[in-house]
Amino acid sequence: MAWFRRLIHVSSSIGSSIKYRNLNPSSPFLFTSFSHFSTESTLQTQSPNDFQYPGLRPTKPGEKPRVVVLGSGWAGCRLMKDIDTSIYDVVCVSPRNHMVFTPLLASTCVGTLEFRSVTEPIGRIQPAISRDPGSFFFLANCKELDTNNHEVHCESVTDGENNLKPWNFKISYDKLVIAAGAEASTFGINGVNEHAIFLREVHHAQEIRRKLLLNLMSSDMPGISEEEKCRLLHCVVIGGGPTGVEFSGELSDFIIKDVHERYAHVKDYIHVTLIEANEILSSFDDRLRQYATKQLIKTGVRLVCGIVKDVQPHKVILNDGTEVPYGLLVWSTGVGPSTLIRSLQLPKSPGGRIGVDEWLRVPSVQDVFAIGDCCGFLESTGKPVLPALAQVAERQGKYLGSLLNKVGKAGGGHANTARELELGAPFVYKHLGSMATVGSYKALVDLRESKETKGLALTGFVSWFIWRSAYLTRVISWRNRIYVAVNWATTLVFGRDINRI
Amino acid sequence: MAWFRRLIHVSSSIGSSIKYRNLNPSSPFLFTSFSHFSTESTLQTQSPNDFQYPGLRPTKPGEKPRVVVLGSGWAGCRLMKDIDTSIYDVVCVSPRNHMVFTPLLASTCVGTLEFRSVTEPIGRIQPAISRDPGSFFFLANCKELDTNNHEVHCESVTDGENNLKPWNFKISYDKLVIAAGAEASTFGINGVNEHAIFLREVHHAQEIRRKLLLNLMSSDMPGISEEEKCRLLHCVVIGGGPTGVEFSGELSDFIIKDVHERYAHVKDYIHVTLIEANEILSSFDDRLRQYATKQLIKTGVRLVCGIVKDVQPHKVILNDGTEVPYGLLVWSTGVGPSTLIRSLQLPKSPGGRIGVDEWLRVPSVQDVFAIGDCCGFLESTGKPVLPALAQVAERQGKYLGSLLNKVGKAGGGHANTARELELGAPFVYKHLGSMATVGSYKALVDLRESKETKGLALTGFVSWFIWRSAYLTRVISWRNRIYVAVNWATTLVFGRDINRI
Repeated sequence: MAWFRRLIHVSSSIGSSIKYRNLNPSSPFLFTSFSHFSTESTLQTQSPNDFQYPGLRPTKPGEKPRVVVLGSGWAGCRLMKDIDTSIYDVVCVSPRNHMVFTPLLASTCVGTLEFRSVTEPIGRIQPAISRDPGSFFFLANCKELDTNNHEVHCESVTDGENNLKPWNFKISYDKLVIAAGAEASTFGINGVNEHAIFLREVHHAQEIRRKLLLNLMSSDMPGISEEEKCRLLHCVVIGGGPTGVEFSGELSDFIIKDVHERYAHVKDYIHVTLIEANEILSSFDDRLRQYATKQLIKTGVRLVCGIVKDVQPHKVILNDGTEVPYGLLVWSTGVGPSTLIRSLQLPKSPGGRIGVDEWLRVPSVQDVFAIGDCCGFLESTGKPVLPALAQVAERQGKYLGSLLNKVGKAGGGHANTARELELGAPFVYKHLGSMATVGSYKALVDLRESKETKGLALTGFVSWFIWRSAYLTRVISWRNRIYVAVNWATTLVFGRDINRI
Repeated sequence: MAWFRRLIHVSSSIGSSIKYRNLNPSSPFLFTSFSHFSTESTLQTQSPNDFQYPGLRPTKPGEKPRVVVLGSGWAGCRLMKDIDTSIYDVVCVSPRNHMVFTPLLASTCVGTLEFRSVTEPIGRIQPAISRDPGSFFFLANCKELDTNNHEVHCESVTDGENNLKPWNFKISYDKLVIAAGAEASTFGINGVNEHAIFLREVHHAQEIRRKLLLNLMSSDMPGISEEEKCRLLHCVVIGGGPTGVEFSGELSDFIIKDVHERYAHVKDYIHVTLIEANEILSSFDDRLRQYATKQLIKTGVRLVCGIVKDVQPHKVILNDGTEVPYGLLVWSTGVGPSTLIRSLQLPKSPGGRIGVDEWLRVPSVQDVFAIGDCCGFLESTGKPVLPALAQVAERQGKYLGSLLNKVGKAGGGHANTARELELGAPFVYKHLGSMATVGSYKALVDLRESKETKGLALTGFVSWFIWRSAYLTRVISWRNRIYVAVNWATTLVFGRDINRI
């Protein structure tokens, strides 16, 4: 684009040559003229039937091999952080340009933490993708996989931008790491996608925060009936896993401290109900679970044993016919395989995840690996499918990162060159323990490998302190560590943020 | 709603009476039953023809008089902060529940500051609206004014919530303060509202940040043509007032530091063009203006003298026929009267603002005042209409706050009771000076009352330091002062935030 270069040239030469006193706003020197502008419109478009997509071609023997990572969650980011970029070029394909520190996401829904304190840009986790000529981050979704040709087909993300058409391209890989995560399970219940909010991404937390504040203000309008006030301020959480319990705890903290002070007119109308079909926190042992239950009830959370049958715009229908009116409905009933994962023609583990062997390889295809919530051990390995936890995903990312580095150093980095290589020790998962807060400076910490083994299992304020300290040190960057600490401090001193922006 | 109270009762009695060891998740005591739920749907609706709207009735002689404030900008918030809530009940009607610290809004577009560091909830500026039984904040727009009956007709804001219908209500006032601000001027140019982004509210800054990051990532997709890359990364700013200049400076800082480091693949394609029909920063004197011009050009901002004729989805057409392709278009050409202000049957000042006398009263109607960007002195006062500046608005809010307190103390708080009261000194505006940053740690500071008078006029790093210090002390709350300082520090150390959330 010649006009661009010409403009830059004119601008900078003006900047350096004109003397200070000669500068005069009406002088023709001051303003760059646009007379050289190209007037033809050359907007780029792609025909939907155009299968000759542009893309990154296969690497050549002398070049660095290319690792393509699908996803930017715990697994993919840990792998990218650990991969040796002197051996590999890294290409990440994900619909979001950041990683979410999921254990702290519930805290952002009520303003205890800020959204940006729990997100880390991929470009900071692995700086090579912003700088190296062969490494990239693409804000895109994987649409198709061609394992025969070692290719991934992608479509760019253009959300919310009407003027931008999705752009299709393909990427040749030497190694492919599928770390695309899972989807929230709706169990096929009608209305969940339309009316409930999940709690897996930052935009979910943003939606919850906006809706909660809107409902608090809407319920205070003159003439709103008592019944409608109760409905608007009834926060219903479906699913009593760690996410649902932590979110309920955060909500009750928000109500006890901030709603009572900042929305005093309606404080007696707001309530939290947690609906769970079985037991809350089923992965914890009896004693911890009972403590959590007692604690939640004490802080005003209503625990209801029920199964959701139908979700309507303003009420949930339970299996026994009970209607539960709600103003805010949060759905946290666990995860299942995503549409992409279901569509892939690859071996599957029990539960429909991508099946992997002990080295996290997808058998039957060359150079394809899967890690995190989207993968599970194949039945033939004799190992159980691991739970969809951050620590499982991170451990797999770490393992596969060093495995790929080893393979690369041994000369097996390029496509189809690692068939005969010795891979070493397989991936073994050792559970480090579980933690969950229940609000009011209380938490559960279970540092045992499983419910049956011996070890440390704590409840109360000390647990809460361990919970906070552990996460503060786990937060990936120093920047976010500072922000999480500052957020916690200002929440303590000034209360939670209630700007509805 | 009887079921609600029953549930609370059951929950809390369980919480206190059941012993720890007896807690068992399968016990019927633990989970509250929903069997008492009302199953009739009693969702509240309003007929559009229902003119018997609910609302706040006129105050009675023994009660506190009610001041209704329309708007939550500089003028309205300063007034609410200063009003004596032992004399008055305060009711604020605004479509946003916070005040925006506008001078720092441009910094949030590129991540130098966070959005929440420049916003302050109304409930913190005037805590009475969250607590006092007669004071309220309503998230609503004023639709109509009935000065004969001392009434305001409002409609609630439900943006983005499909399941919530707007709610109509009316409020009787004893004193009405119109502080509803102004609207961005488009000069009737086709396409501005559709394709350009203004820079007046936090959601504008959010949109700019999201779009800028999306364009940076979209331009790095495989196969995007050179021309399309240039277009996507061409940031065009229309209007060379303080907002346009400060935003251009922030953008060039972002490009020089963060794009070069974090988006190295496309760094040579991104450019900023500032289009202005006359002179940039016309309110500053020649020397400062020339400095700003030189500084902007030096940091790579292209200054173009031109008038926009038409705005199309991907290009701006200038008066001379030049086509300027853009990826991001920010419109900051000043403000004019809003639709509400234009629709009100009140006296008008030159320029179409609500006309006020020297005491900021709207003549011809009782108990109505106007402050901030929406008002201007009537021609009959012989005074010029004041510029749409934060300091004008704030000063007017402060003046009117103490005027109303005085009137209230003298027993003139209620409607139609202040006719004969002596109001004291009229409002006089004294300009304290102007400031603007131009990026690269440089700013202009002009501490003179007008261009003609003598006084301090500085440029460069010292000015920039004064600019930052002045705003840091002006930020309303300690919470935000901490956050602005922490944001500036982390930007310096870690760079700007590039999470696209």
